[in-house]
Amino acid sequence: MRSILIIGAGKSTSSLVRFLLGESKNQNFKLIIADKNKVAAQNLAANHERASAVALDIFQASEREQAIQKADIVISMLPARFHIEVAKDCVRFNKNMVTASYVSKEMEALDEDVKQKGLTFMNEIGVDPGVDHMSAMQVIDRIRSKGGKMLLFESFTGGLVAPESDDNLWNYKFTWNPRNVVVAGQGGAAEFIQEGQYKYIPYQRLFRRTEFLQIPKYGRFEGLANRNSLAYRSIYGLEDIPTLYRGTLRRIGFSKAWNVFVQLGMTDDTYSMQNTENMSYRSFVNSFLPYSPTDSVELKLRLSLKIDQDDLIWDKLVELDLFNSEKKIGIKDATPAQALQKILEDKWTLNPEDKDMIVMYHKFGYELDGEKKQIDSTMVSIGEDQTYTAMAKTVGLPVGIATLKILNGEIDKPGVLRPIHPEVYNPILKALEDYDIKFEETERPYLGYNPDQLT
Amino acid sequence: MRSILIIGAGKSTSSLVRFLLGESKNQNFKLIIADKNKVAAQNLAANHERASAVALDIFQASEREQAIQKADIVISMLPARFHIEVAKDCVRFNKNMVTASYVSKEMEALDEDVKQKGLTFMNEIGVDPGVDHMSAMQVIDRIRSKGGKMLLFESFTGGLVAPESDDNLWNYKFTWNPRNVVVAGQGGAAEFIQEGQYKYIPYQRLFRRTEFLQIPKYGRFEGLANRNSLAYRSIYGLEDIPTLYRGTLRRIGFSKAWNVFVQLGMTDDTYSMQNTENMSYRSFVNSFLPYSPTDSVELKLRLSLKIDQDDLIWDKLVELDLFNSEKKIGIKDATPAQALQKILEDKWTLNPEDKDMIVMYHKFGYELDGEKKQIDSTMVSIGEDQTYTAMAKTVGLPVGIATLKILNGEIDKPGVLRPIHPEVYNPILKALEDYDIKFEETERPYLGYNPDQLT
Repeated sequence: MRSILIIGAGKSTSSLVRFLLGESKNQNFKLIIADKNKVAAQNLAANHERASAVALDIFQASEREQAIQKADIVISMLPARFHIEVAKDCVRFNKNMVTASYVSKEMEALDEDVKQKGLTFMNEIGVDPGVDHMSAMQVIDRIRSKGGKMLLFESFTGGLVAPESDDNLWNYKFTWNPRNVVVAGQGGAAEFIQEGQYKYIPYQRLFRRTEFLQIPKYGRFEGLANRNSLAYRSIYGLEDIPTLYRGTLRRIGFSKAWNVFVQLGMTDDTYSMQNTENMSYRSFVNSFLPYSPTDSVELKLRLSLKIDQDDLIWDKLVELDLFNSEKKIGIKDATPAQALQKILEDKWTLNPEDKDMIVMYHKFGYELDGEKKQIDSTMVSIGEDQTYTAMAKTVGLPVGIATLKILNGEIDKPGVLRPIHPEVYNPILKALEDYDIKFEETERPYLGYNPDQLT
Repeated sequence: MRSILIIGAGKSTSSLVRFLLGESKNQNFKLIIADKNKVAAQNLAANHERASAVALDIFQASEREQAIQKADIVISMLPARFHIEVAKDCVRFNKNMVTASYVSKEMEALDEDVKQKGLTFMNEIGVDPGVDHMSAMQVIDRIRSKGGKMLLFESFTGGLVAPESDDNLWNYKFTWNPRNVVVAGQGGAAEFIQEGQYKYIPYQRLFRRTEFLQIPKYGRFEGLANRNSLAYRSIYGLEDIPTLYRGTLRRIGFSKAWNVFVQLGMTDDTYSMQNTENMSYRSFVNSFLPYSPTDSVELKLRLSLKIDQDDLIWDKLVELDLFNSEKKIGIKDATPAQALQKILEDKWTLNPEDKDMIVMYHKFGYELDGEKKQIDSTMVSIGEDQTYTAMAKTVGLPVGIATLKILNGEIDKPGVLRPIHPEVYNPILKALEDYDIKFEETERPYLGYNPDQLT
């Protein structure tokens, strides 16, 4: 019987395993779930007749090689930096491979070998990157096949809390790694291009430079720039496009309030503070404000960032219990970012009944037959529960579908790939529709950034 | 005849050489000035009968060793990272050594060897570090010798333009390395302690958290926090002091306007911008603002940073010609910081007749016999011209004086040292007074940060 090896049994693997087990009888394969923690693998296998769980430490070369040799195709759900160990063995033992992670330089370097052996290493086939690539390239290729010229591409993705579970003032809960949320946007200016002009946003302005977006039935969102928009020019073949912007979605008002943390220095993850173990939330805030024997932390913060008495930002801060002098950070030598994460986790952790939501919004501006046009394309996916989250679904399903199509020879393009080719994205997007991951397209007047074109 | 070797004939060496040559006959020594660029060394030697100039590449070991072996004492005026090569030879050939730079880890590591050989390696004996150490330790030791307990130490230094040459709205010109001024404050939060509370200021708030200071006859200044105040606890023996704060001086209003550059991202030195060679100053500014086909760069900047129509910040920006669409950056692949430096150098370069100024301000708060007291100590030094600048004088004279006192055996404390010991700072501060580098002390009521102590 054919066998699929999944290495890594983390939280985001739930939907992938459920999908594959659902197909395992029809399509006649078995599933080996391997993880350093065998119990995690067993929980996913759940005694299914076509699933087995094995303990696997990927740094034990012989264990790893044995497991890979026995498989027909390998899915690595490991943290991105560990894929390369698996990838090298896949080249050596002639196995196809699938990951949901960005193509690293090391992975890219295998391209020649992978092609020579006629193998398919499909990467970036989760949600972002993944579903964003596929849904964008499908529309871009369609526009170009009609002779259209791309003028604008903007693309936003957000991992948010579902409307039915959205019950705090920030309209936000942690639906994935909280640390990444706290430090998001750091490490360099965001760079993109608007109407032919290169634009740069430093971290200290990032959360004040949002765009508004609206999705019918779901309301308004704000988009803030990702760091690396320009890299997509070569990936998507948009070298000459005058406007290219990629961003992250939040609910309106999140960024303005988050900017308080940025300005105060609370998101800094580069140094340890003194005495954080016994530091109260209030003292943590006070560490970033001038000393005063009389003025309250509240007043100093308001003055420092010019927050009016009736500004909704204030309620958001109070909701987090930021001024509580009893609650303790309780982490030794915490960085500001670690301390802030602790405070946020008190309030932003999903309740057991909460659901998450993935939202994607693409704008395509183009010129066709002398006319400027625009297509907006949106996708919203709501999680079922805290196992089969929207995140797990939108990552796991495209990974699973791609894996089966490669296993069955329906996708056989060789190389270290992203899902940007029609023979890859068309069948996968089609299959995803059955799982309610589908895009709504709207034709609109071309907006661009030139209001005179609207008259 | 005894000989002093100066390695490095940079701009800041002028006053040092003049001082030493002035003493050379009386004290019977000759001066060897060595530099990779022999002409620079010759210019300093200026055919003085007791001076000679030699070409020396410190990375040529045999050249370097020969020069050091022949000297009685070595002054390294090289960039700080190169001292260690000289220092190792000085250990090997039993030579005393003097530098104006911070003690590096590598230098510190030589301490045992230096002590064992009975040598004196005097470092941090320029102005900041240097004159600040000596003048502060003299007062601190005096307070402690009377049985006083230190409550507060704040210390500020600024390299500024002299009042008679102060003719722009920023009250600032470049009197030392412009690059260091542009990137000042980056690389981590400023950390200090106020009334027993640890305080942290991130870069994005640094220029909004200034203190005001006043010096009779010289007017008002503002102080902004340096990164590393807490390191001075162990150096000065102030481990338990409740308030310790070190900072940089500017004229009032500088920081508020400089913050515009910080907020926009113009001081970032970590990435290259596109097309900077032909970029106008105006386009440079526009790169950090949202695209608009109609709104002016001026309006976008005002809105972005909420600059009122009558705010003096605006005149400061206009004075720099920041919105000029003709003037070009003219640097290929410039970082934002490099481009900004270019713009600033147009306006902030000293005119030939301009003079510079070094300002130092210490506050010492202490308790003596149950009473809280405060001493404020200030020093202002004005340059003579653009050769004998205040910077060159306040660096070169303490270096030169220390060198002679070591050469003459008046200072013979062994080890890798800073000038924080009475036997070092007392004679040097005394000698500096003859060159008008002296501190004015004022006794004041203890201010601290607790206004109720003022009533």
